[in-house]
Amino acid sequence: MPWPASLVERPGALAIDSHFSISAGGCIDTRVPAAAERIRDRISRKTGTQMAALASGHPTLVVECVQRTRPTGNRQQDPILPSLGEDESYMLDVDAGGAHLRASTGTGALRGLETFSQLVVPGAHGFQVPFVHIEDKPRFPWRGIMIDVSRHWMPVAVVERNLDAMAAVKMNVFHWHLTDDQGFRVESRKFPQLQEQGSDGHFYTQQQIRQVVAYAAARGIRVLPEFDMPGHATSWVVGMPELASAPGPYRIERTWGIFQPTLDPAREETYRFLDAFIGEMTALFPDPCFHIGGDEVDDTQWKQNVAIQRFASEHNLKDSHALQAYFNERVGVIVAKYGKTVMGWDEVLNPGLPRETIIQSWRGQDSLAEAARKGYRGVLSYGYYLDYLKPASYHYANDPMEGKTRELDDAAAARILGGEACMWDEYVSPETLDSRLWPRSAAIAERLWSPSSVKSTDSMYDRLEAVNRELDWVGLKHRSNYEPMLEAIAGGRPAAAVRVLADAVEATGIEIRRDARKYTSLVPLNRLVDAARVESEPVRHLENCVSELESNPGARSARIAELNIALTSWRDNRAAIGPLANQNSLASELLPISEELSTLGAIGLQALKYIEARNPPSRDWLAAQRRVIEAMDKPTAEVRLAATRPVLMLLQASSQVAN
Amino acid sequence: MPWPASLVERPGALAIDSHFSISAGGCIDTRVPAAAERIRDRISRKTGTQMAALASGHPTLVVECVQRTRPTGNRQQDPILPSLGEDESYMLDVDAGGAHLRASTGTGALRGLETFSQLVVPGAHGFQVPFVHIEDKPRFPWRGIMIDVSRHWMPVAVVERNLDAMAAVKMNVFHWHLTDDQGFRVESRKFPQLQEQGSDGHFYTQQQIRQVVAYAAARGIRVLPEFDMPGHATSWVVGMPELASAPGPYRIERTWGIFQPTLDPAREETYRFLDAFIGEMTALFPDPCFHIGGDEVDDTQWKQNVAIQRFASEHNLKDSHALQAYFNERVGVIVAKYGKTVMGWDEVLNPGLPRETIIQSWRGQDSLAEAARKGYRGVLSYGYYLDYLKPASYHYANDPMEGKTRELDDAAAARILGGEACMWDEYVSPETLDSRLWPRSAAIAERLWSPSSVKSTDSMYDRLEAVNRELDWVGLKHRSNYEPMLEAIAGGRPAAAVRVLADAVEATGIEIRRDARKYTSLVPLNRLVDAARVESEPVRHLENCVSELESNPGARSARIAELNIALTSWRDNRAAIGPLANQNSLASELLPISEELSTLGAIGLQALKYIEARNPPSRDWLAAQRRVIEAMDKPTAEVRLAATRPVLMLLQASSQVAN
Repeated sequence: MPWPASLVERPGALAIDSHFSISAGGCIDTRVPAAAERIRDRISRKTGTQMAALASGHPTLVVECVQRTRPTGNRQQDPILPSLGEDESYMLDVDAGGAHLRASTGTGALRGLETFSQLVVPGAHGFQVPFVHIEDKPRFPWRGIMIDVSRHWMPVAVVERNLDAMAAVKMNVFHWHLTDDQGFRVESRKFPQLQEQGSDGHFYTQQQIRQVVAYAAARGIRVLPEFDMPGHATSWVVGMPELASAPGPYRIERTWGIFQPTLDPAREETYRFLDAFIGEMTALFPDPCFHIGGDEVDDTQWKQNVAIQRFASEHNLKDSHALQAYFNERVGVIVAKYGKTVMGWDEVLNPGLPRETIIQSWRGQDSLAEAARKGYRGVLSYGYYLDYLKPASYHYANDPMEGKTRELDDAAAARILGGEACMWDEYVSPETLDSRLWPRSAAIAERLWSPSSVKSTDSMYDRLEAVNRELDWVGLKHRSNYEPMLEAIAGGRPAAAVRVLADAVEATGIEIRRDARKYTSLVPLNRLVDAARVESEPVRHLENCVSELESNPGARSARIAELNIALTSWRDNRAAIGPLANQNSLASELLPISEELSTLGAIGLQALKYIEARNPPSRDWLAAQRRVIEAMDKPTAEVRLAATRPVLMLLQASSQVAN
Repeated sequence: MPWPASLVERPGALAIDSHFSISAGGCIDTRVPAAAERIRDRISRKTGTQMAALASGHPTLVVECVQRTRPTGNRQQDPILPSLGEDESYMLDVDAGGAHLRASTGTGALRGLETFSQLVVPGAHGFQVPFVHIEDKPRFPWRGIMIDVSRHWMPVAVVERNLDAMAAVKMNVFHWHLTDDQGFRVESRKFPQLQEQGSDGHFYTQQQIRQVVAYAAARGIRVLPEFDMPGHATSWVVGMPELASAPGPYRIERTWGIFQPTLDPAREETYRFLDAFIGEMTALFPDPCFHIGGDEVDDTQWKQNVAIQRFASEHNLKDSHALQAYFNERVGVIVAKYGKTVMGWDEVLNPGLPRETIIQSWRGQDSLAEAARKGYRGVLSYGYYLDYLKPASYHYANDPMEGKTRELDDAAAARILGGEACMWDEYVSPETLDSRLWPRSAAIAERLWSPSSVKSTDSMYDRLEAVNRELDWVGLKHRSNYEPMLEAIAGGRPAAAVRVLADAVEATGIEIRRDARKYTSLVPLNRLVDAARVESEPVRHLENCVSELESNPGARSARIAELNIALTSWRDNRAAIGPLANQNSLASELLPISEELSTLGAIGLQALKYIEARNPPSRDWLAAQRRVIEAMDKPTAEVRLAATRPVLMLLQASSQVAN
């Protein structure tokens, strides 16, 4: 995953044992041997096989890069940087003679190595790779993830392991949302008061930024920095109140929403500062694109500031939109002066915006189509907002080329560069970021890489399950943090009952949580909702069990046994959770939802008895149970009972059994 | 854990929230503020709470180091190194005013910080630390772990996370077994052929060695390097056959056992080489102790070498023991010349051995007592061999001061410095090292730190369960690797049934595995036995469930429900494992043991029915079931069915129910 453009499987498999080695010495792109070494290490860990670090005379996998000169724009002494639209194609052949990976570019070879790694599975004689012929290339050149590190601070190690995961599913743009009201996360040496006053001490040093950029580049990922302006700027003006449109002092914002502090578009000092600051930042970030945000400007300060209003009327700027357009134009000139292309959210699209600007659309395909018709390139983020914690299938179904984008002519359609998953971090901490991004981002990665014809949801979930586990070996903590978080809730004790409950629920996203209680950045994210998954795999498995009761008679008794075990553990959950809840607020909030789960378990067991006895229940009984379950629809403790789904299916199945 | 020398708990608790901070600025030992930062980060992750990185005006925990000058032997410009016998005591007070940690030395402060971290638990209003007064200091000054990195290579990251775990349980010596027949794991710049020919490319560079030494020192851990000689030397002579007692060529040893390649004790060239090599290594490792191994010398080469035999008779060395004693004496002079103290295994104890030599005893307390009476200091490793995978209780019961060591006078008793857990890595890979070392090493840590009166096994297991989870937050992978390994066996798929089986078994150690099949260092360690735990916590929990059936009538129905769920999942395991085993050798070897587990589940369910009905089974039935279970005693696929224990208890309980 993502599924390749073309794959032919053949009978037979190549053994992966302690003699496994990769030869990539012929590639001029030094990223390739380094990636080969990482992949070999990953395969060694996954297969539990000690492999020599030295090159072998007979490499199992030979990587060949056709490219014999360094890519354009890369000087000899620089590290090789991935670039927008570069050739990422590769061919992979595995047969009895070994494995052979061919790519035009180093980046293509990186993509092919990840494919090879995913192919390693256990077989009849140990781990192996099936014989295949793969020809692969991406559908879209822009496949990104935006991570907000302002609302919750994300340490370098967290960013890096997510870059590894992005590389594993062939994503190629890391959009780093570095500033917002809640924190200014990058070191400026010219204006150190920005991070010193605006970050609680949680910011990336310039050395760390360079480290992350190099780490990403080594994995074929571009780093796109975003400095959101003129709104979402509270953290800027904590240290530099003179930039704001109203007198300070300001404090770092601890709550969520849209806030008033806004850069002053009417003073030349603002642009002198931005020139110096953007000059510093464009030198720090090598990518040719530079994101200036531009979303959600609250114009209260502008309206209340006499000087700004006078400036607006002098310059014929008839409203705040025009004022923002003016600001953008000035900033655009500065960014262009440093040789960079401006990128901004939908709101920056205004008459007079330079044609090379790239629009990131949270508004949707229609907005993107409109921009494309006007000549602007665009990236879709609408439908890829991961902070809503919607199912992978929802994002998977969202295609950049649908609605009005589908009606575009070829030239305009080519301006739709791809998409970007967005992770806003109001309700995400370093411990939960991985499980909020993954595995769902892999479904988005497939949407953006694979041919549009690859769209079966069942197949996607099937492969998502496998890639979800592959990401463990890549180094993510999306799954390994689950049990420790549940056990922390249980006071550092075995948490079997908490796990039963957590497996039966799904976390709610920003829509529910923003109204659930008074959240601030100081509120711990350590509750069941934070540990719980976005989609419960165990529940999905039980739904399949119920389906199989009818569809697969041979497995009927095994499925009934599985359902019986799960339903019994649900029924008894309330009794098991009880003792944990004493003097423990994290556990005591589980009681009401555990109560509901116990009820569900009892209903499910009763339905299962009807099914086993092939004796349908009365309509009244069914209706009564359904009413009970409907009442569970409302989230409790900010989680939803996913367990209702298989139980409703059981009720349905029980009503249909033949007498 | 380890339990402090003195602890008084008081009513009340200190809240741990986003305002939590530690002040350690007053300590001259710069390791303390760095450790405080790590502990704050760990608490932040464990509690899911974002905490400012900046010092607060009102720190929650104030750390005070009494020591106002740098420890003796540490020059101003050097990093501070822990030393044998240094003061590690500390006092910790937590009350309504905050927490206060006082220590004489920086090392004592490090120990106290770890105690504080373990005290953080959830309470009625979120995470908290109970009010306590703790006065603590270690019983023994030498509390170590030896890790063999020769038989299986252990990357730096693996070593470092285990150093973090050692620090978490206050262990203070990392004994690094760097060379053996299967690999020469350290870079020599004077003799690069050693690592180039003797390591398959898996060795630590000198820079990495310095990094690990600094990493350990920052955590109050000494690094004791071991270069095993004159035996266990195959990997030395691959690159330098001229050092051996028989002509080469030699190859890196891939199998396990005691091998013939042995350094030549009769040639002056050997000692010239050793002088240069030991000179290089003593400069690399700052600790005053230097381990020369000296164990298990196979004297075949010596006996077959005419020159060596002539040398022996010329020097009046009547046998191979005398020859090894001569060799040791020569090496001892070289080590002493570089200002270091020699350490060696039991075998080095010979008349004429310098008094300052430290003996590491795998033979036991009596051997240690004999050495102590002769004036040698000693460290106990007998009873702490972790590669046998014996239960924590076994190691916990093994005290350095028992048998003949208990009869020593005070002066001689003081020569018993402590103990060292030993991990020989024939059957241990980077993925499994953590789970083989932990949590059992924590029980050994407590034996060596806590007063001898702390010895309740039940209390130990209770606390071990909690510390086992704390080690997740410390960064170990002993638990997080479990499910990925099981899922790799299942082909990257959900592995609920494999987990049920794995939870019901316990891995066997070197005693069983060395005879189970033809193992070499090239055989993957990726099977159920490698993933399975040494002691099954879920089985232990079920044993407690059975005990509670009688002892706690109020919980009877809840315990019956729990047993019912577990036993049902056991009974159905064979059916669930079946489909995974197709064309998968890792899964198909599970079938016989899964068959046995299913049988056990069925027997247990039947016994439970007798118990629920308060109707004892017939003696014949009981005897028949016991015979079936006895037959399961033999390991299958190198694992033992731990599940037999609670089922045997159930049979016993069923036989005793009142009619």
